[in-house]
Amino acid sequence: MQRSTSKSVDAEHGGELALLREIRRRAGRQRGGGLSLGIGDDCALLLPGPEEELCVTTDLSIAGRHFRMDWHSPEAVGHRVLARGLSDIAAMGARPFAAFLSLGLPAELTAGSGRRQAWVDRFFDGLLRLAQEHRTPLAGGDLAESPLPLADIVLVGAVARGRALLRSGAKPGDLLYVTGNLGGAASGLELLRNLPARMQSAITAGKVPASLREAMQRHLYPQPRIRQGQWLVLRGAATAAIDLSDGLSTDLTHLCEESRLAAEVDARTLPIDAGATLAQALHGGEDYELLFTATPATRIPATIAGVQVTRIGRMIPQRRGRPRIVLCTDKGSQPLAAHGWEHFLTRSRRSQ
Amino acid sequence: MQRSTSKSVDAEHGGELALLREIRRRAGRQRGGGLSLGIGDDCALLLPGPEEELCVTTDLSIAGRHFRMDWHSPEAVGHRVLARGLSDIAAMGARPFAAFLSLGLPAELTAGSGRRQAWVDRFFDGLLRLAQEHRTPLAGGDLAESPLPLADIVLVGAVARGRALLRSGAKPGDLLYVTGNLGGAASGLELLRNLPARMQSAITAGKVPASLREAMQRHLYPQPRIRQGQWLVLRGAATAAIDLSDGLSTDLTHLCEESRLAAEVDARTLPIDAGATLAQALHGGEDYELLFTATPATRIPATIAGVQVTRIGRMIPQRRGRPRIVLCTDKGSQPLAAHGWEHFLTRSRRSQ
Repeated sequence: MQRSTSKSVDAEHGGELALLREIRRRAGRQRGGGLSLGIGDDCALLLPGPEEELCVTTDLSIAGRHFRMDWHSPEAVGHRVLARGLSDIAAMGARPFAAFLSLGLPAELTAGSGRRQAWVDRFFDGLLRLAQEHRTPLAGGDLAESPLPLADIVLVGAVARGRALLRSGAKPGDLLYVTGNLGGAASGLELLRNLPARMQSAITAGKVPASLREAMQRHLYPQPRIRQGQWLVLRGAATAAIDLSDGLSTDLTHLCEESRLAAEVDARTLPIDAGATLAQALHGGEDYELLFTATPATRIPATIAGVQVTRIGRMIPQRRGRPRIVLCTDKGSQPLAAHGWEHFLTRSRRSQ
Repeated sequence: MQRSTSKSVDAEHGGELALLREIRRRAGRQRGGGLSLGIGDDCALLLPGPEEELCVTTDLSIAGRHFRMDWHSPEAVGHRVLARGLSDIAAMGARPFAAFLSLGLPAELTAGSGRRQAWVDRFFDGLLRLAQEHRTPLAGGDLAESPLPLADIVLVGAVARGRALLRSGAKPGDLLYVTGNLGGAASGLELLRNLPARMQSAITAGKVPASLREAMQRHLYPQPRIRQGQWLVLRGAATAAIDLSDGLSTDLTHLCEESRLAAEVDARTLPIDAGATLAQALHGGEDYELLFTATPATRIPATIAGVQVTRIGRMIPQRRGRPRIVLCTDKGSQPLAAHGWEHFLTRSRRSQ
């Protein structure tokens, strides 16, 4: 048999083609309003409503940095990849319109796709379950073999023209609010990090012991606040918003910078997650709650779409030589510096 | 000094923040119609015209697979990453609206950003030069440290509602056309592969010897056929289209499958690139020419927007037991199988 320099698509790309067909089949089940053409052509086609603007965000997740193959089940990886993107859509107050996924995986993780136990199928289980909850069709993407598992998620959202929540809209005197509780994702991660290897692998296999389920949930399956963001846009209630992906101190700094303001945060009113410390609530990333501002005249209810909302401070003018954020506690006030969220790899290296 | 478990954004993320600022500064220079908010918030905001539909495509490029650090200059990598995405937009006949880039790079490639010689700056030189040629603003993206260099490009295009060129629109009897010449990218790659290491490193450094420049150009700096795609939409001239990223035999198979047809290709009329073989013209990937169909009644000119157009065959009904594509040569007809495009890594491994 002649050895050709080129090769048959079906022979050597067989696994990849089968996987593409499987993704197309599963993605095809979900259709959202406005997606006029999904997977299968050079591009997907999106038809927004006449009064709508589109928001676009991309988030890159890399094994060892944003997730760990030895800690996270494929379902949790899929969920977390999509949750990162949806949370950016929530922060604009938009409705999810469509998702696109570029996936790089070693061949052994795509082998046997279509059967229940393949890593890639379980990854899509987690991703598509969350997509369905938020009526977000998977409309396209790319697939490549990669020695390092990685996923880039692209989210497109739609929002009424000129109504998107920006980081830059806060005014001096605006009050500062947060949805849900803070620090739960960081405390869940800390717990996971310190578990015996045997229990870590049980979790990787998707078997979270009942006693740990609640403590882990915020880290493994964070919930993007899509409905809460949309509520704020619909009522015109917020002047600015950002999602808490890097931690309160960092994300509030971003909001202050874009609005050219400073902020006071009251530590005594912070909604700290049951298992978390004050430091985790202030600096822990990946809670994916919404941080938003509203004028003092705006009535913000105690819960929005079933999630509690807490007033945690206010926006003040920025003064030269003064800290960007001041934290008020029982013992007085102190500057609060932005502490960047560390990903697993960095911390894990440090702890080894 | 107390050692905290969290870290200062400015201290340890200093390089990444500086790079983000630099990207934002450079991307800010380019603005396209309809981009209402660029880099700096949770999402970018896109406002399409009232009669426009949006196309979205993502393309993942991974070092060792889609480019090689020891063969490609950073400028060529940046150009090629964007060209892949723009070519998908061209295949829909759309105008580029905005690009998003998720970039994963080892720390050493981002070190010293802002100075002329950093790898990442030269990468952006190549990417932004092509972006500017096609008036495509870089509107957002993500940045992460990654042991493996990789880039996921997202392109959003705009096209008059219902007018996008699809793969599925061809009818029996339609004639088959291709822009430009075929096989040039594959022959350039073959040349690069066989160069002595000394000359390969000259090319990586961005110094392509004058004698090789033309032969390399199609591989290093492919030109997406944006203007040609838009011309076809404007005139309503094409019934279907696809871009030649994987090679004629593979991409024509896709077009046949989506249109549920077969095709005849005349080898005698194929516009083979001066340095290329027939096999490279049939199966070589990354030429990024447009392959399109038109009814026999449609007058297709010999050049569109300065690029030659050649009629290479026709679409015929699909018959059970007959090959999907037939190649007509001086010696008669033979089936033409889809030969998938091989990326560098695979071939390079084989040749080692």
